[in-house]
Amino acid sequence: MEFREIFERVCARADEAAQAQSALARATTEVKNAALLAVADALDSHAADIAKANAADMLEAKESGMDAGKLDRLKFDEARVKAAAGGVRHVASLPDPVGEVVRGYTLPNGMRLTQTRVPIGVIGMIYEARPNVTVDVASLCLKSGNAAMLRGGHAAERTNAATLAVIGQALQSRRFDSTLVQSVDDFGRDGATAMMEARGHIDLLVPRGGKGLIQAVVTNSKVPVIETGAGNVHIYMDCSGDANKAIPIILNAKTQRVGVCNAAEKLLVHKDVAGEFLPQVAAALFEAGVEIHADERAYALIEQSAHAQEAKLVHATPEDWDTEYLALTIGVKVVDSLDEAIDHINAHSTGHTESIITEDYSAIEEFTGRIDSAVVMVNASTRFTDGGVFGFGAELGISTQKMHARGPMGLSEMTTTKWIGYGTGQVRA
Amino acid sequence: MEFREIFERVCARADEAAQAQSALARATTEVKNAALLAVADALDSHAADIAKANAADMLEAKESGMDAGKLDRLKFDEARVKAAAGGVRHVASLPDPVGEVVRGYTLPNGMRLTQTRVPIGVIGMIYEARPNVTVDVASLCLKSGNAAMLRGGHAAERTNAATLAVIGQALQSRRFDSTLVQSVDDFGRDGATAMMEARGHIDLLVPRGGKGLIQAVVTNSKVPVIETGAGNVHIYMDCSGDANKAIPIILNAKTQRVGVCNAAEKLLVHKDVAGEFLPQVAAALFEAGVEIHADERAYALIEQSAHAQEAKLVHATPEDWDTEYLALTIGVKVVDSLDEAIDHINAHSTGHTESIITEDYSAIEEFTGRIDSAVVMVNASTRFTDGGVFGFGAELGISTQKMHARGPMGLSEMTTTKWIGYGTGQVRA
Repeated sequence: MEFREIFERVCARADEAAQAQSALARATTEVKNAALLAVADALDSHAADIAKANAADMLEAKESGMDAGKLDRLKFDEARVKAAAGGVRHVASLPDPVGEVVRGYTLPNGMRLTQTRVPIGVIGMIYEARPNVTVDVASLCLKSGNAAMLRGGHAAERTNAATLAVIGQALQSRRFDSTLVQSVDDFGRDGATAMMEARGHIDLLVPRGGKGLIQAVVTNSKVPVIETGAGNVHIYMDCSGDANKAIPIILNAKTQRVGVCNAAEKLLVHKDVAGEFLPQVAAALFEAGVEIHADERAYALIEQSAHAQEAKLVHATPEDWDTEYLALTIGVKVVDSLDEAIDHINAHSTGHTESIITEDYSAIEEFTGRIDSAVVMVNASTRFTDGGVFGFGAELGISTQKMHARGPMGLSEMTTTKWIGYGTGQVRA
Repeated sequence: MEFREIFERVCARADEAAQAQSALARATTEVKNAALLAVADALDSHAADIAKANAADMLEAKESGMDAGKLDRLKFDEARVKAAAGGVRHVASLPDPVGEVVRGYTLPNGMRLTQTRVPIGVIGMIYEARPNVTVDVASLCLKSGNAAMLRGGHAAERTNAATLAVIGQALQSRRFDSTLVQSVDDFGRDGATAMMEARGHIDLLVPRGGKGLIQAVVTNSKVPVIETGAGNVHIYMDCSGDANKAIPIILNAKTQRVGVCNAAEKLLVHKDVAGEFLPQVAAALFEAGVEIHADERAYALIEQSAHAQEAKLVHATPEDWDTEYLALTIGVKVVDSLDEAIDHINAHSTGHTESIITEDYSAIEEFTGRIDSAVVMVNASTRFTDGGVFGFGAELGISTQKMHARGPMGLSEMTTTKWIGYGTGQVRA
């Protein structure tokens, strides 16, 4: 099929979705929750069908040589489908952001003015082979009154098709249109490209996945995009930092879960404490199987530590400071001052999350004030940057850009606002 | 100069601006206000110099055949410079959005979490020849802690250069860097194109001007954009509408100021009241010099009215419904129902402002609920959609898109947020 035709079909689907969305936008929370519970029940009762479709995707992926980590993400067996259904029930239980009055007042001329949260419209999502994202995004969009257009990656096509069929039937059973949650997978990669071109048909595009995918969407899309996810996350150990807090935090941030965007990738240590602290933290990191890429000063200090021989200690290269390893690897650097730490972070961070370990009030003010990232932690693990932890109940992703939403995006961040002015005949003088 | 070189120079300027902005971002409100007052004083005392530069721009513009409306916008004589200085003093008097805590709570694990407003960073503005915008944007950016990169159009180059020289000196007198407010006018149109490419250097781009300019920026920019301004604004006269409110509102919305984005461009009238109401409102519009482009039913009803002979009544074409006249012209259409009015508006509106004239509660709920525009008025003039009227003190523009800001954009809308988590050693389980 010619791209032009694919583009027109994707626009036509988005317009159908928008039509269905205008009904959803005005549905009461009760009605939307009932639909969400119907979706959850349907996922439960069709878990075996979805798992069967997933088994076919898994087989093909294995044959094509997909690595173990990706295979695990692709897996959507009965237990995982049922867990996803539980997630949908949780979304049903969350407060509805639609209708919240953000601001409201009466103008001097007597006109009552309110700014109220309303759904955005049609949200496009381009993601890699993670079938649970299909269910997450569908449920978050439904709850917040938005339609979803999905491109879920070739490897999960059978799984996503089976999942969307179940969701669509459940929606119809509650008298919603199944076009509220649609896929463009049948157009392959061109479906994603068409979504990026569909300005005026799709209101927002959210890419979720690897750096390459996100950068391609961010630079090519004509539809407004929210950039998510990339996390070259730093922890800075200040000269006044408490090692008893620092070491558990660093270990947690690096190893509690690897391959996630809020895991620590870099450790900066103030020179005044590096001599005592670096061998300690290095020993703990080596013990946990972490490879250390150290700058010259850090290398010299860690080299003498207990496990440095058996463990993996290598010299950092300039590329290290801009790399998100997503692995049991950490870049370590000694800095002369808080200032140098802040400047280094602002130069190399992806703007996701950074943490300072310190007991010094002025250092905290300086660090939290000057660091230009979505989230700044003080004496806490970077792993807390998460919509669930922040109390949003669920998240669409973590925005690393400054427009619209910054940091974890929950249901509120999936809305826009509408101003309503209630007058009694006012005209402008 | 090759485009590549221009692009690199624009990025270098943006990076300098970002450097200066990081100091501005942490300046206290007192310090920022003192700088704004210094700018206002400098504009006052150099008003003659700026007016002289403007006279040269005006002369060239006249010789090149610029029309009277554009010439008037280009004019920046001493009186207008002094008025702009007054605007800067007003911005100094407004509340500072930076530092406002948007949300804050303590997590179950004891971590205190706050979401605080911070400046966006470097804001690029591409606008047409209106020298007062240079001063407005500079003052709004300074107050909200942002740096400004400006492309103000060829016709106003001398005026803008003179204005920026005065602003720059005033900033330096208050120990701020003059790179906080910069122009890329010396690169001509390529300067604007370079700003659109400068992702990672410029945080936000706002186009302000004609439809062509805005569409070019919106579809070509790799930097996040806020779409502003276009207003195909509708007023709907419901069957229960009060003609005594409707006629003054329609006249005000159409004629109080022509050529602005919140002026009414279309009037839809319910068929049940069209017979009595249309001849009345048409007479009032004709009296005010307005040309009416009427659909068939409206034409037939208006034709019989008193002034239809001498005044301008023409048949509407399909293009009329999508046209923002920005002139003493209004499109008029008879609709069968509230439903038809809403569907017509959602199909043809630019999403700026619409108004319903009605006394019917259910019609208000339906109209305000289903109309998909930034602002919906009830029994009030569409001319009220304005940052000043809404109590923002000043506005950067009126967003007609849904991301980040919708409707009038004041100082708050020129900020993003930063989450700060204050912990005592918390790690994630």
